[in-house]
Amino acid sequence: MIKVGIIGVGTVGSSVVNILKDNADVISARAGVDIVVKSGVVKNLKKERDLDIVLSNNVDDVLNDPEIDVVVELMGGVEEPFAIVKKALQSKKAVVTANKALLAYHRYELQEIAKDIAFEYEASVAGGIPIINALRDGLSANHIESIMGIMNGTCNYMMTKMTDEGIAYADILQEAQDLGYAESDPTFDVGGFDAAHKLLILASIAYGIDAKPEDILIEGIENISQDDIAFAKEFGYAVKLLGIAKKDADEVELRVHACLIKQDEMIAKIDGVMNAISVVGDKVGETLYYGPGAGGDATASAVVANIIDIARSGKSTPMLGFDKPMEGKKLRLKPTANIQSKYYLRINVSDRAGVLAKITKVFEQNNISIETMLQRPSDETSANLLISTHIAVESDIQNMMTSLASLDFVNSKPVMIRIV
Amino acid sequence: MIKVGIIGVGTVGSSVVNILKDNADVISARAGVDIVVKSGVVKNLKKERDLDIVLSNNVDDVLNDPEIDVVVELMGGVEEPFAIVKKALQSKKAVVTANKALLAYHRYELQEIAKDIAFEYEASVAGGIPIINALRDGLSANHIESIMGIMNGTCNYMMTKMTDEGIAYADILQEAQDLGYAESDPTFDVGGFDAAHKLLILASIAYGIDAKPEDILIEGIENISQDDIAFAKEFGYAVKLLGIAKKDADEVELRVHACLIKQDEMIAKIDGVMNAISVVGDKVGETLYYGPGAGGDATASAVVANIIDIARSGKSTPMLGFDKPMEGKKLRLKPTANIQSKYYLRINVSDRAGVLAKITKVFEQNNISIETMLQRPSDETSANLLISTHIAVESDIQNMMTSLASLDFVNSKPVMIRIV
Repeated sequence: MIKVGIIGVGTVGSSVVNILKDNADVISARAGVDIVVKSGVVKNLKKERDLDIVLSNNVDDVLNDPEIDVVVELMGGVEEPFAIVKKALQSKKAVVTANKALLAYHRYELQEIAKDIAFEYEASVAGGIPIINALRDGLSANHIESIMGIMNGTCNYMMTKMTDEGIAYADILQEAQDLGYAESDPTFDVGGFDAAHKLLILASIAYGIDAKPEDILIEGIENISQDDIAFAKEFGYAVKLLGIAKKDADEVELRVHACLIKQDEMIAKIDGVMNAISVVGDKVGETLYYGPGAGGDATASAVVANIIDIARSGKSTPMLGFDKPMEGKKLRLKPTANIQSKYYLRINVSDRAGVLAKITKVFEQNNISIETMLQRPSDETSANLLISTHIAVESDIQNMMTSLASLDFVNSKPVMIRIV
Repeated sequence: MIKVGIIGVGTVGSSVVNILKDNADVISARAGVDIVVKSGVVKNLKKERDLDIVLSNNVDDVLNDPEIDVVVELMGGVEEPFAIVKKALQSKKAVVTANKALLAYHRYELQEIAKDIAFEYEASVAGGIPIINALRDGLSANHIESIMGIMNGTCNYMMTKMTDEGIAYADILQEAQDLGYAESDPTFDVGGFDAAHKLLILASIAYGIDAKPEDILIEGIENISQDDIAFAKEFGYAVKLLGIAKKDADEVELRVHACLIKQDEMIAKIDGVMNAISVVGDKVGETLYYGPGAGGDATASAVVANIIDIARSGKSTPMLGFDKPMEGKKLRLKPTANIQSKYYLRINVSDRAGVLAKITKVFEQNNISIETMLQRPSDETSANLLISTHIAVESDIQNMMTSLASLDFVNSKPVMIRIV
């Protein structure tokens, strides 16, 4: 019998307890042993909970319990859970976590400490989709060329609604908050940070690359308007917040931002709160993994799968997929300024003679070549220029954005969306 | 170092050799050891091959080689490879195979023989998509409610072309043969047998159910016409050949047949030669896995991933996912006659008075309730009746089809497609 202790018994933790009870028949048959939750740790012992486990408000009651084989960390945060899981690993307890922030900051230290002990984290990326499993084991024969993922259901829900129903950004954000998809401070989701944490975890498995959130390009969806959606539709694009990892020679690009992506790409067809991750391997080509990226039961499904793995085989795969570094081939993070892409820009200008000539001049001065341009009236005295470019360099685009913003007939900071 | 011997060095076998060479850097880093192909067995030694391995035409040169750790079986067939992999397992060599027919017939015997030895078969279902991995490990916390998959790329290519370009069945079959997607005898693909082999493998992992191809409902796409495609489009369906496994209380339905499926379902959006498998778990909900179902490199990607797994951990998961049977809950195969579905029928009738009344009478006599009906002229003297039903029982439909076929104004055997 495998005994589990859960640190943090909220929505996901309660689902873990319930799945291990509801599905005990199939879990025991698959794992070869019974798996039971012995105890849990919560902050507030007085809160009513309909769970048949021993609860404590002292983490040491789990960490020091010699009967507990697996510690499941579901408390959230970074430094506090880091200290706790370190202690668990040092007491030779296997650890399962759903905590993406913990991994975004401390995954390599954890890999070091967990050398001979199982440390699993399937639920930390894309909830119920077994993407860690697929990338670390199923695609292990491949050099990974790229990962492109809808890793934040809240943003995808909002983009889908803006596209299908023409709802304005502020209204759909309010709706997402009312539905519980977005927090009252939505920055972590709509600012791209949640997706960035997940991307960093996948990038380590794909490329063995260490990077922290502050090292990579992270932008959100806050500036997307119905003008941009209309442009996207007209030119056959969907608008998505994507996490992207891409290998280019010895460098890896890591970036999270809104994208225009051709509607016939599989990832463009993913609507609503669902997540999907497309992985291109040099041998297998494109594979894609789709499913629920959040929710108590879906996330707990991944947590419990990890516990079953541990029951079956202890530690079977190196935590981040690499048993040792690739010989002589350490990949480096590509500086953000060097990223190349096609770009879409929305520039609100005063509607007067000569403006277009001056704008196109600025493009030329920054080595940016225009692919398509649409001009649409914005109000009686101004117009929106909707412009897509050929492939350009990020630093040139950023310089040009600064130049454009300083022009007296440009009414607000131009909006830029990268085209995939 | 792990040494591999390959039995059957055709397209996939050559790709295995090449991947292990081309990607040796990343494979060795992930596996923790070097993996090399020591030797291969082929039928015809005289055939020119550009491979840097020792070849023999005697299978015992691999089976009796004490240096070989992993035998990769890629020869195809059923009884001959069965004898060979048994011998390999008995000599304590791990086995990796891509052979779905072998598994469709002998998977439970192989599981018995392979008790303590790794026997892996990721490539046997859906080529490069790590679906075995996902179902056996990633979703192990779930009771699987259903599996629905596009498991045959040839059929999906043909259905896509018939839908998008209005090409007739016979013409698109010829094109698929010219492109090498379909064999000169296409029955194995278009008759649904290839998909059935794969479905049986997945059903064992999901449900622990033993069944052979002859036990289950297998129909192909041979009778699909542009009339059916037109009906499908009009009512918002896509036409797909699907492998379906579905749990209903203590019974499991297993069936392969053409389906009408609502266009907004993810699986309906999968076009061309690609494969996709949708799995619904009771806790996680729907997840879907998409990618190339065939091709040398894609299939070899899965074979090599299995070899890496074995190098990492030997045997880590029970071969068919269950370490022991579920207590007191053995699932049974549902008899085909009891399957329930909605149905679409195309009935070609002589265009004369009273026909419709007589047809609808036959429906009524067989307890089949009609949902929609379209009548379309077929030629000057006949018409096609395109009818969809409410949920009905397979045996009733089959009886009704027999009755309909015997009517003197019904010009040919009616065509039936199940609606998902």
